[in-house]
Amino acid sequence: MLLGRVAGTLVASNKEPTMEGLKFLVIKQLDVDDAETGGYVIAADAVGAGVGEVVMFATGSSARQTAATRDRPCDAVVMAIVDTWEIGGEVRYTK
Amino acid sequence: MLLGRVAGTLVASNKEPTMEGLKFLVIKQLDVDDAETGGYVIAADAVGAGVGEVVMFATGSSARQTAATRDRPCDAVVMAIVDTWEIGGEVRYTK
Amino acid sequence: MLLGRVAGTLVASNKEPTMEGLKFLVIKQLDVDDAETGGYVIAADAVGAGVGEVVMFATGSSARQTAATRDRPCDAVVMAIVDTWEIGGEVRYTK
Amino acid sequence: MLLGRVAGTLVASNKEPTMEGLKFLVIKQLDVDDAETGGYVIAADAVGAGVGEVVMFATGSSARQTAATRDRPCDAVVMAIVDTWEIGGEVRYTK
Amino acid sequence: MLLGRVAGTLVASNKEPTMEGLKFLVIKQLDVDDAETGGYVIAADAVGAGVGEVVMFATGSSARQTAATRDRPCDAVVMAIVDTWEIGGEVRYTK
Repeated sequence: MLLGRVAGTLVASNKEPTMEGLKFLVIKQLDVDDAETGGYVIAADAVGAGVGEVVMFATGSSARQTAATRDRPCDAVVMAIVDTWEIGGEVRYTK
Repeated sequence: MLLGRVAGTLVASNKEPTMEGLKFLVIKQLDVDDAETGGYVIAADAVGAGVGEVVMFATGSSARQTAATRDRPCDAVVMAIVDTWEIGGEVRYTK
Repeated sequence: MLLGRVAGTLVASNKEPTMEGLKFLVIKQLDVDDAETGGYVIAADAVGAGVGEVVMFATGSSARQTAATRDRPCDAVVMAIVDTWEIGGEVRYTK
Repeated sequence: MLLGRVAGTLVASNKEPTMEGLKFLVIKQLDVDDAETGGYVIAADAVGAGVGEVVMFATGSSARQTAATRDRPCDAVVMAIVDTWEIGGEVRYTK
Repeated sequence: MLLGRVAGTLVASNKEPTMEGLKFLVIKQLDVDDAETGGYVIAADAVGAGVGEVVMFATGSSARQTAATRDRPCDAVVMAIVDTWEIGGEVRYTK
């Protein structure tokens, strides 16, 4: 999984029918120092994440292993809201 | 998923038989500011996207989770036409 | 899918038994202007592509969705020979 | 698989229910000379790896082929703790 | 598939039980001119490749399509030892 911050939301009314009801989040990717890497992904939301929150997202077929995304053409899902992480005993991010 | 603009179309008459009938779109990838990244992908069209439209595409096995692409050697599919997205409350793209 | 030109062929007599009979093509990747990107892939041939031809290839699990490659340890397949593509109404490549 | 060092741990209390009970490790990626590449991944732990240990991790659908991660939205797993590797007969890392 | 040279071997005694008995190879990636690209992968061996040999490896779910790796958390496998390849009629590598 990778880290990201929910930067915004996306609306797409004309879409594959099975994607109906999914919330699309614009995720800016973060490195382990909580800095933006310049990368992004549009991910489906499986956990009720809000704009500004730091999250973990999974990609590929693993993004379909949630109740919200199963059997859908979805290759990225927010599957956790991050509370905190530490590196070498030092907290790098806390909610 | 990633963002892209439908830049053009591709024709391939000699192809894996199961790909018959699919429309191939040349997609130029976009970042979250609606600027081209330099990347591209050739994607099958699952939603009737036209040249010039901004779309979302899924890759990998998730690209086979549409009626058009199931069980086919297709690793990229346009699965939504984008209406709008915003970042930090500011609209970055609207159709 | 991505675009590539068949640059050559590869022979491997000692291989996973299920790969027996597959033809391996050396593919140089192309961008949408028909220029080499510097990338390459060794792909199984599902369509009878010859050296010099411009093709589309699929990667990952999608590369196993052909009669030639199903259930085999193959992560890239040439699944179409390209006739032409255009961008913004202008032909960028024609066979 | 790729090489990494367990740099730290991550806590996420609000997550996809099936991820309950998994331990999340912050992995800094290593090259074959045991030097950090700058890349990272957040991986589930399948082998009881501790901070500071050098590990191998698998990504994509292969990350779901452990008892801990099966059918879960997990795209990276630590599946081995590395004892040693050598290149050209010279040991590059030993535990 | 990509090309690589078997640069060395890796030992991991504490690993996911299903990985028991697999041989891990340190593979340095090669380009089509038989030059190292700087990339690497740790791959399971399905064909008895030795140090110094030039091989093809498959990644992702395709890496699990061998008798040695099926249903295991393995995302890279050496599935062929390369005899030779040519580009534009000129041999670039021969065993």
